[in-house]
Amino acid sequence: MVNETQHSCSASSSSRSDGGSSSGSESSKDNSRCSTPVLDADRHERLREKMRRRQDAGDKWFSLEFFPPRTANAAVNLISRFDRMGAGGPLFIDVTWHPAGDPGSDKETSSMIIANTAVNYCGLETILHMTCCNQTKDDITGHLQKAKRLGLKNIMALRGDPSGEEWEEEVDGFNYAVDLVKHIRNEFDDYFDICVAGYPKGHPEAESYEADLRHLKEKVFAGADFIITQLFFRPETFLKFMKDCQAIGITCPIIPGIFPIQGYHSLRQLVKLSKLEVPQEIKDVIEPIKDNDAAIRNYGVELAVSMCRELLDSGMVHGLHFYTLNREVATTEVLKRLGIWKEDPRRPLPWAVSAHPKRRVEDVRPIFWASRPKSYIYRTQEWDDFPNGRWGNSSSPAFGELKDYYLFYLKSKSPREELLKMWGEELTSEESVFEVFTCYITGEPNRNGYKVTCMPWNDDPLATETNLLKDQLEKVNRRGILTINSQPNINGKPSTDPIVGWGPSGGYVFQKAYLEFFTSSEIVMALLKVLKKYELRVNYHIVNVKGQNITNAPDLQPNAVTWGIFPGREIIQPTVVDPVSFLSWKDEAFALWIEQWAKLYEEESPSRMIIQYIHDNYYLVNLVDNDFPLENCLWQVVEDTFELLN
Amino acid sequence: MVNETQHSCSASSSSRSDGGSSSGSESSKDNSRCSTPVLDADRHERLREKMRRRQDAGDKWFSLEFFPPRTANAAVNLISRFDRMGAGGPLFIDVTWHPAGDPGSDKETSSMIIANTAVNYCGLETILHMTCCNQTKDDITGHLQKAKRLGLKNIMALRGDPSGEEWEEEVDGFNYAVDLVKHIRNEFDDYFDICVAGYPKGHPEAESYEADLRHLKEKVFAGADFIITQLFFRPETFLKFMKDCQAIGITCPIIPGIFPIQGYHSLRQLVKLSKLEVPQEIKDVIEPIKDNDAAIRNYGVELAVSMCRELLDSGMVHGLHFYTLNREVATTEVLKRLGIWKEDPRRPLPWAVSAHPKRRVEDVRPIFWASRPKSYIYRTQEWDDFPNGRWGNSSSPAFGELKDYYLFYLKSKSPREELLKMWGEELTSEESVFEVFTCYITGEPNRNGYKVTCMPWNDDPLATETNLLKDQLEKVNRRGILTINSQPNINGKPSTDPIVGWGPSGGYVFQKAYLEFFTSSEIVMALLKVLKKYELRVNYHIVNVKGQNITNAPDLQPNAVTWGIFPGREIIQPTVVDPVSFLSWKDEAFALWIEQWAKLYEEESPSRMIIQYIHDNYYLVNLVDNDFPLENCLWQVVEDTFELLN
Repeated sequence: MVNETQHSCSASSSSRSDGGSSSGSESSKDNSRCSTPVLDADRHERLREKMRRRQDAGDKWFSLEFFPPRTANAAVNLISRFDRMGAGGPLFIDVTWHPAGDPGSDKETSSMIIANTAVNYCGLETILHMTCCNQTKDDITGHLQKAKRLGLKNIMALRGDPSGEEWEEEVDGFNYAVDLVKHIRNEFDDYFDICVAGYPKGHPEAESYEADLRHLKEKVFAGADFIITQLFFRPETFLKFMKDCQAIGITCPIIPGIFPIQGYHSLRQLVKLSKLEVPQEIKDVIEPIKDNDAAIRNYGVELAVSMCRELLDSGMVHGLHFYTLNREVATTEVLKRLGIWKEDPRRPLPWAVSAHPKRRVEDVRPIFWASRPKSYIYRTQEWDDFPNGRWGNSSSPAFGELKDYYLFYLKSKSPREELLKMWGEELTSEESVFEVFTCYITGEPNRNGYKVTCMPWNDDPLATETNLLKDQLEKVNRRGILTINSQPNINGKPSTDPIVGWGPSGGYVFQKAYLEFFTSSEIVMALLKVLKKYELRVNYHIVNVKGQNITNAPDLQPNAVTWGIFPGREIIQPTVVDPVSFLSWKDEAFALWIEQWAKLYEEESPSRMIIQYIHDNYYLVNLVDNDFPLENCLWQVVEDTFELLN
Repeated sequence: MVNETQHSCSASSSSRSDGGSSSGSESSKDNSRCSTPVLDADRHERLREKMRRRQDAGDKWFSLEFFPPRTANAAVNLISRFDRMGAGGPLFIDVTWHPAGDPGSDKETSSMIIANTAVNYCGLETILHMTCCNQTKDDITGHLQKAKRLGLKNIMALRGDPSGEEWEEEVDGFNYAVDLVKHIRNEFDDYFDICVAGYPKGHPEAESYEADLRHLKEKVFAGADFIITQLFFRPETFLKFMKDCQAIGITCPIIPGIFPIQGYHSLRQLVKLSKLEVPQEIKDVIEPIKDNDAAIRNYGVELAVSMCRELLDSGMVHGLHFYTLNREVATTEVLKRLGIWKEDPRRPLPWAVSAHPKRRVEDVRPIFWASRPKSYIYRTQEWDDFPNGRWGNSSSPAFGELKDYYLFYLKSKSPREELLKMWGEELTSEESVFEVFTCYITGEPNRNGYKVTCMPWNDDPLATETNLLKDQLEKVNRRGILTINSQPNINGKPSTDPIVGWGPSGGYVFQKAYLEFFTSSEIVMALLKVLKKYELRVNYHIVNVKGQNITNAPDLQPNAVTWGIFPGREIIQPTVVDPVSFLSWKDEAFALWIEQWAKLYEEESPSRMIIQYIHDNYYLVNLVDNDFPLENCLWQVVEDTFELLN
């Protein structure tokens, strides 16, 4: 009777020794500490499995389509958009393939690099489109190999638009998407999840709707895992298409492509390209308001919401794919009104997990890069395992050099003129630098009336969590403790806490208070005297640009500063203060003074010399208060330091 | 200026990538989780380094000498004594070498096996004595190789008593201890720490006191690391000897051998063997009370305390070596009065760390063997690393079989007659078994007036920590929830807490509540229904002797149930509930019913059949309450179960 329960599993003692669960083999390399915590099933699943699991669980989901931008600046903006829209919890995003834009190259704006950024830097499950006509097998294979190398796992296999009016089939060439699907399966076996396009009204070049359905079936039978459809204007169009697909034996998921009308011109252009006809009832509404962008967008949102509702209510649709046109407002609005935009999706770890399959086991990072996660990923991209021999003790490459510092995703999102307005057209003293830091913390405008919304070490406004420390931070920055990273102590808050929570529900999260700042050698000397009183409670690392390093860390051991306790799991400690990696971070933290700030000014200018002076003479300090159940003592440490100086 | 501080260390960015600290290389194999926590410097140090460190820190310490017992039963008792006296915090113990007793054999009573047990099972730093005269080089090398294999790291190199009255030096043979010292250094390089004997009055066979000092110097210069002296009766004897040693250039530690007089006869025998003369002032006291054992022992304690005080006060003595004669009371009394018996020495981990060098990285164990640590060590002795591929997932041997179950250190300390008195000469029903469990918990005598001080799963009375749960445990055992292991939940108590604390000071320890018991299938069925209500809070494993296994553990992951947070360290989680190893424990836990209990009774007897019935039909259950900050819900789970049954 007992064995009838759901969780029952039988194990004889003889079967134990030869392996147990297959997931266990991965952790057999580990030493005696925590095994790889499987925090989030997502991290180990293929896209097609995630889709299936969400469907089985009755969850509704959405995905977002983007195209590669034309300029490097636009790319920086698009990546910020990935981060913002990624926060809503898309199941995946996809990046279109622009044959004219050298899509497989290493250019900042290529399809390949944009998809790479989405996966590796933004942690988004990503499908890379790929078209095949007018390309050689070797080209295609090269692109696919590169995609695999970059950690891309999903391909949308398309024919693409043949160039020239009189396109003819090539013998042995790639003439249709099905050829590409077959090629991927031949050359890469089951490595990629493959998506293909479906046309609810039939492909415009197909002999007939029925013939097009047969082509689609061919694509699926050649190895495609799911279908995303071309846009359509009426829900019944999709539902009929879906039934027709099922009738001829297509059983894989079919995801409707949703196009929220966002403006008169974009609609007209899309219609021209897709050779679709806009239904009269829509034309009737749009024509009279065609010069009123806001009105059209509102109507587009209404229309999309009502169509999506009908699709979801049909019970046949579990996921919705949005053609965003790289815009944010309309799609986000539709998703919020549908209730499938997840304002605060569960964070599996306190930092955003990279979606690269190699990095899926990564579950601990140094705290130093907390505000520069993309830089951390960039500098650790050559690692074979995560972390690399506990941050640099192994023979494999340690942290990447700073030489490629100008790569677009490491640059500030703001242009030079804006940065000058925020950080000062002209600095007159170290104190004017203190002011910039203080304004960043308080959110108050600076003396010229500009808000300081980013700093070289923080490309975004203050984190919600840091806001908890705002008053104290303001006070110390005014006096030359130039903070760049901090966290409050947390003594067992629920893992679902909206500000500090992470990991599975039902758990508890903890933090030790942390404070990291630049400051003058005068303050450092007083600080060191004060720290003697706190020797047993506070760990510190103090380093200058030359690498002179003062610490009380025992045996250079890492200090865990964020950890979580969860039901039925081992302890997870995703953030540490690690003395070894701190020296790599130090290089970056000091370089940012020069690269992002000093270089805004003319050489030899007083402003530049002030920043250069700070770079050359200040120390970078980090402090950890180990007594996390007590009130954070780091403010008292700083207070005592100032008192000693007076 | 800053660089003048104590903790200053300079690191240039170029030196970072090639390794950092040498201790780091060990953790480079680890995955991304906690690195090997260096909890206790003791675990990584050689005995001579520990000695030096204690001396530098101004700590006083002691060590204890034992001889191998004559019978297997005496060996079981001696090992219990190791545990009890080990709790006082000796720096090391040493085990003498009895040439007549086949000292290097695998017999339960051999010097080798007793030393092995002390190191591996009791976690004590241990010196094995070894004598060399009348032995071949091959014999000696064989013994040393075996000692090394067993994890012994320290040898006391002695000549031994030549057999036969007219002993003559052998050419190329081992004639003196110095030959053995040289041999060890030749054959084993610096692997062993070597101790040699010093004679404060000169060796009785030496030509002169001065000649003996020169012999001692030879031994030290041949490679001995420290000296333990023969016993003496007056502190000035030792202090003069020490000065004389220093005067001729002996600079290694010299540890005085202390012999608390424990009885008239043992004193006379020792004097005869050592050819020492008892000073008249001692004889004057002892002769009149020679038939009063207690009086002599009291005097012996007084004498030893006063001599030890004088030695320690001299400033020349940092450690005291006690000749215990395998007895406990006198030595313990002296140590307590001197204030160097550490009632509750800091526990580096919640369980006793094995002193085997291979096991020094071990820092996580399944909770199941909490009351049977020696059995755990025995069953894991073949492992290459700790734990072995997370308890059985690797290709190396998993848990050792139970076939050698009768090995003496796995047996109960109590003889059959005592066990029968405690557990019942005659069982009449399952309820009489419930009574035995209940009496063990309460400490009350059973119906025949005997206290139940051990159980097959617990060879010792209830742990202090378990006492916290006594009332609830009593209640549930009365009703057939036969508990064998439990711990309360702990939400951040100081690591120095006398009952639940462990690890370095300044930290905080945590526990999830745990309860493990045998119970009938009827209760299990009700329990499973109740557990549905607690699905998200309580993890369970329920298994019967046939291996039918019911659990809600996600993906067979271990659940951390004891962990600690320490200043400047990574998280340590030394105890887990591990689903894989639970199935190995299950075999042992069920076998104990038969091997230790059922077999006390005649075959076919009703008593034996009752135990056999329980063995065949009961389930072994473990429950973890994951919500450690809240009140332990496991008692409510049990309460609900009984309610459902009524």
